[in-house]
Amino acid sequence: MVNVAIMGHGVVGSGVAEVLIKNREHIAAKAKEEINIKYILDLREFPDLSYSDKFTKDFNEILNDESVKVVAEVMGGINPAFDFTKSLLLAGKSVVTSNKELVASKGAELLKIANDNNVNFLFEASVGGGIPVLRPISQCLAANDIFEVVGILNGTTNFILTKMIKEKMSFDDALALAQKLGYAERNPAADIEGHDACRKICILASLSFGKHVYPNQVHTEGITNITLADVDYANSCDSVIKLIGRAKLLDDGHIISAVYPAFISRDNQLSSVDDVFNAIMVRGDAIGDVLFYGRGAGKLPTASAVVADIIDSVKHLDSRKYLSWDESSPDYVSDYLDDNVRLYVRATADNISAAMNDVKSVFGDVHFLTKANQDINEFAFLTPFSSERTLRKDLESISSLNAASVLHILD
Amino acid sequence: MVNVAIMGHGVVGSGVAEVLIKNREHIAAKAKEEINIKYILDLREFPDLSYSDKFTKDFNEILNDESVKVVAEVMGGINPAFDFTKSLLLAGKSVVTSNKELVASKGAELLKIANDNNVNFLFEASVGGGIPVLRPISQCLAANDIFEVVGILNGTTNFILTKMIKEKMSFDDALALAQKLGYAERNPAADIEGHDACRKICILASLSFGKHVYPNQVHTEGITNITLADVDYANSCDSVIKLIGRAKLLDDGHIISAVYPAFISRDNQLSSVDDVFNAIMVRGDAIGDVLFYGRGAGKLPTASAVVADIIDSVKHLDSRKYLSWDESSPDYVSDYLDDNVRLYVRATADNISAAMNDVKSVFGDVHFLTKANQDINEFAFLTPFSSERTLRKDLESISSLNAASVLHILD
Repeated sequence: MVNVAIMGHGVVGSGVAEVLIKNREHIAAKAKEEINIKYILDLREFPDLSYSDKFTKDFNEILNDESVKVVAEVMGGINPAFDFTKSLLLAGKSVVTSNKELVASKGAELLKIANDNNVNFLFEASVGGGIPVLRPISQCLAANDIFEVVGILNGTTNFILTKMIKEKMSFDDALALAQKLGYAERNPAADIEGHDACRKICILASLSFGKHVYPNQVHTEGITNITLADVDYANSCDSVIKLIGRAKLLDDGHIISAVYPAFISRDNQLSSVDDVFNAIMVRGDAIGDVLFYGRGAGKLPTASAVVADIIDSVKHLDSRKYLSWDESSPDYVSDYLDDNVRLYVRATADNISAAMNDVKSVFGDVHFLTKANQDINEFAFLTPFSSERTLRKDLESISSLNAASVLHILD
Repeated sequence: MVNVAIMGHGVVGSGVAEVLIKNREHIAAKAKEEINIKYILDLREFPDLSYSDKFTKDFNEILNDESVKVVAEVMGGINPAFDFTKSLLLAGKSVVTSNKELVASKGAELLKIANDNNVNFLFEASVGGGIPVLRPISQCLAANDIFEVVGILNGTTNFILTKMIKEKMSFDDALALAQKLGYAERNPAADIEGHDACRKICILASLSFGKHVYPNQVHTEGITNITLADVDYANSCDSVIKLIGRAKLLDDGHIISAVYPAFISRDNQLSSVDDVFNAIMVRGDAIGDVLFYGRGAGKLPTASAVVADIIDSVKHLDSRKYLSWDESSPDYVSDYLDDNVRLYVRATADNISAAMNDVKSVFGDVHFLTKANQDINEFAFLTPFSSERTLRKDLESISSLNAASVLHILD
């Protein structure tokens, strides 16, 4: 029997307890050890639960109990999760977590401590909820040179965009519905401003390319400025708008990483990922494109990923899993403006035909879009493929238009 | 340095050699050991290759060389692959294979031998080509009770059906095109009759539910009888026809497994898996539906999965991977006719309205389908949900119609 502890009894933590208890026999068969919850750390009290005797408010009780071999950190946030995790790893306990903020900000440091102390630090649940993606990247794709990871990493924004695309709901109405259904927080900034997706692409990029990518190195745009007009123009060129996180390996060994809403062609498998679902596409030299799809959040999916990590840790108490990456140099992530891209531009102009002529003479090969009920002072176009810095500079140089919306095209 | 051997230098075998040589450094870093190809077994000669000195025609040279720790079996077929694999495992060497026929027919036996000899028998490449799916099922989903696996498991038939659906190509023309493009063999029976998909669902079901499912236990239908009329009727109820393999766990611990063409609603993520792509959906109690998507065949995708297994074997020379299942009892797989399903029926009748009335009085709640240019003596309908045995008996009882096509509906 192996003793484990759960830190945090919120949505995910209570799910972890539920899965460990409900599937106890099945899990013991998989882990080849019975797994016993010895402590649950939470400042609140839960007197009515069948396992209420396991609660403690004292972290040191877990830290100092040598019989506890694996701890699930499902509190969220950096403080005190970081200090707790670090202390546990230093004390020779494996830690598994669903905390993307922790891994994105402190992953390299915690992985090094885990390595130095011959314990495991696992975090499958931090990306894609229950979708197995980090292990497949590190293990099954070991034979590949991965050159790009791109995904729909946030279920809340994907739900909102799906409602805008399929039901012509406005952004505000779709957000209100997401809040009503419990998909969005009362303060939805972390989702709709792209920060949640940013943390996840940091973790995916760090693992795929082997060096830590920090959130502040990733250009991040949210979806708050997307309008139904943009949705219609996307539809006119057989595309949908999705919030994506992406990271690309450059020939010089640096990477470019960004989070932004982008036009995705309906030919691309990512375009049909709707509602709260997530999907991660991994592109490797031998394997081509592989996609992992499922529920990216929710109590039980996320809990099932945490429990899988607990099982894996129990099976590897004396050995290290090779899910890891190194610290990076400050210039490791190149400026996203150096990337070659195509942009979608929606613009207003007093004199549409003059502005369209200016666009043609500046950009050359542009593709104008049209939609039903197009505003008389509005037009939209797709630029040619070029350096984003150049494209933006060229766009600014055209004084006859006002750019109302500029979005990326996923190539 | 670890010595490995490759048995077979066909499409996959030459891909394995290519990936091991091309990505040598990257692979050494992942495996924490340099991996050296010591032998390639093939009866043919390849004098112009840079590694032509590695070829041997003598299996015993590999078997008796104690320095060879891992062997990739990529010959295909049962003979002599089975005898070779068995001898190698008994001699204490790990074997990795892409050979679905071998695993589907002999998996439980070979896994037991591997276990008894403390070596690994891995076969990620046998299902879904390069798509990581077996490891995620066994590891990442360890916390789940899986209750169903369903997938588009054969790229050739999916290509043919995609051409029929999207370009209204006839079955014969689409098959001819697939052959011309190298997606289908000159003798396409294994693909179009469903045998290839059958082997793959056997492997998926064996792993997901823990007991061996043999190909002869799986009801298998191919796609040779699908017509453009069926494609149109499917479209009329917002569905597409795909060849699926599925396995479901029943409440009594038995399973039902089958391969057949089925209507898939466009709401289902599997419906947008087109061309030669494969996708496998795994349904678990905690995780919900998870889908793995990618190229299910091809030299480099398959080779990359074989190489990932080689790397994994090299990293676990002294320990067992837990990808395994047990022998099953003869009655483990229940009769597919006992499953509850809905069926699509396309029928001809001399007196259509009389036949439709008979259908209504026998089945009760049926849903009639219509399409453009419907043949005057033809009609189609969806039955209610019921035992397949009952549905088929009821259908036979209606003497006023001739059933031209009966297909399953994926619920």
